[in-house]
Amino acid sequence: MSRVRILGFGMGPQHVTPEVASALGECDYALAVQKGDEDALLDARRAVCDAHGVELVVVRDPERDRTPGLDRAGYEGAVADWYAARLAAYRAVLEERGGTCAFLVWGDPSLYDGTIRVVGELGVPFDVLPGVSAPQVLAARHAVVLHEVGQPVHVTTARRLRGDVAAGQRNLVVMLTAGVDLDGFEDWHIWWGANLGGTGERLVAGRVGDVVADIEAARVAAKAEAGWVMDLFLLRGPEA
Amino acid sequence: MSRVRILGFGMGPQHVTPEVASALGECDYALAVQKGDEDALLDARRAVCDAHGVELVVVRDPERDRTPGLDRAGYEGAVADWYAARLAAYRAVLEERGGTCAFLVWGDPSLYDGTIRVVGELGVPFDVLPGVSAPQVLAARHAVVLHEVGQPVHVTTARRLRGDVAAGQRNLVVMLTAGVDLDGFEDWHIWWGANLGGTGERLVAGRVGDVVADIEAARVAAKAEAGWVMDLFLLRGPEA
Ligand SMILES: C[S@@+](CC[C@H](N)C(=O)[O-])C[C@H]1O[C@@H](n2cnc3c(N)ncnc32)[C@H](O)[C@@H]1O
Ligand SMILES: C[S@@+](CC[C@H](N)C(=O)[O-])C[C@H]1O[C@@H](n2cnc3c(N)ncnc32)[C@H](O)[C@@H]1O
Repeated sequence: MSRVRILGFGMGPQHVTPEVASALGECDYALAVQKGDEDALLDARRAVCDAHGVELVVVRDPERDRTPGLDRAGYEGAVADWYAARLAAYRAVLEERGGTCAFLVWGDPSLYDGTIRVVGELGVPFDVLPGVSAPQVLAARHAVVLHEVGQPVHVTTARRLRGDVAAGQRNLVVMLTAGVDLDGFEDWHIWWGANLGGTGERLVAGRVGDVVADIEAARVAAKAEAGWVMDLFLLRGPEA
Repeated sequence: MSRVRILGFGMGPQHVTPEVASALGECDYALAVQKGDEDALLDARRAVCDAHGVELVVVRDPERDRTPGLDRAGYEGAVADWYAARLAAYRAVLEERGGTCAFLVWGDPSLYDGTIRVVGELGVPFDVLPGVSAPQVLAARHAVVLHEVGQPVHVTTARRLRGDVAAGQRNLVVMLTAGVDLDGFEDWHIWWGANLGGTGERLVAGRVGDVVADIEAARVAAKAEAGWVMDLFLLRGPEA
């Protein structure tokens, strides 16, 4: 019977806590999926495994039907098939190898990460250990607290940003930034970061209207340097 | 000229990341305040310093005027005096010792912590490194993600809970729980934890109406076991 440990590793070996290091050291191997030929997240997992002398077993991400023009049912079916194929690939490795398997999670498993759900569906016993998340690295680099004294912080996605602001939020951490649009937020303050803790790290802070072009340039530079870019930001409304 | 490093250490030595360990190792000493005769946070800092061979310099928290019946101006004046006295005590140590001083922060410096603000007012150069925060340990212990797929998580305080829910929040992490009251939330789901990662750790999860008495009992047990209790919870509204 296999067992799984879900281990947050922050942004790389510099964030691997002693409890994660010791859990990883007790695992028989780690399991990860390879998404393309260049996969920065896979490279990060490999660096952590190498640093801790643990074998990394890599399964190829199953092909997903990306035929253009699929209707909604077709699209959802393709995603479901791909998800089932991925679960089957994981299960095959767990059954063949037995023992204890690590799933290494970028950042912290509690934020915008599907590992807990996927492992839950595998039906094997598992536990979870936390890691440093991207919003925390952002705050540390800018030397800010994520909220004003006694106030809340709302952690959300770019897709939901406008709706959440319309509903009254004035202090938001925005992740999954693809397609984000800051039009209309010119007077808000932004603390932005890309590739935090890794190659190509960039930081920009200021009034949105003043720095939006700097952010765009920094995004391009981060991507040019690292070959990939991930970014997020803290956005705070002007004083009322 | 002194320099300060603000270092998140999670809930104890098990969460000290390699980058924090190496920053701490380069510090000449760490500085902390002692709040009373028994101070669990001070004990945790001492454990981290001992584990890393760094001297801990302790200053007594200045006395605050707690005369009963102070009016609002009197109360605010007492707080301002106490805050200024604490800054002066820190400044005296920095000036006397020089070199690099660590401020060890419980959890992560970006969440409900005043260290960045205080050190900013000291007017010395400083940087910040992240640590594992209490909400992440809570999520890991319960093996949950802090939000539903693609949805936000709202991190707030017990004092603001009702207002934030009235404004539409349905998925909240609630910290600084003193005086929290869950009346009316019977049908919500709660994932609760006390003394996470330390002595007296307790976990309870379920429908609020079913587990609110268990939480009260677990709080009492945590306090009896450790001599102190800190708790927080994730609260999610019932399906609409
Ligand atoms: C799928 S989520 C995973 C978050 C992760 N579990 C964590 O705790 O940080 C990925 C998003 O997190 C943010 N992100 C993760 N790592 C980042 C980094 N090193 N620099 C900037 N943003 C990052 C970006 O917004 C990205 O779209
Ligand atoms: C002043 S805030 C500091 C939070 C800290 N900076 C962090 O990142 O977790 C203290 C509050 O955090 C929560 N907390 C901190 N440590 C905790 C623990 N070990 N177990 C449960 N709750 C904790 C409680 O809600 C407590 O009232």
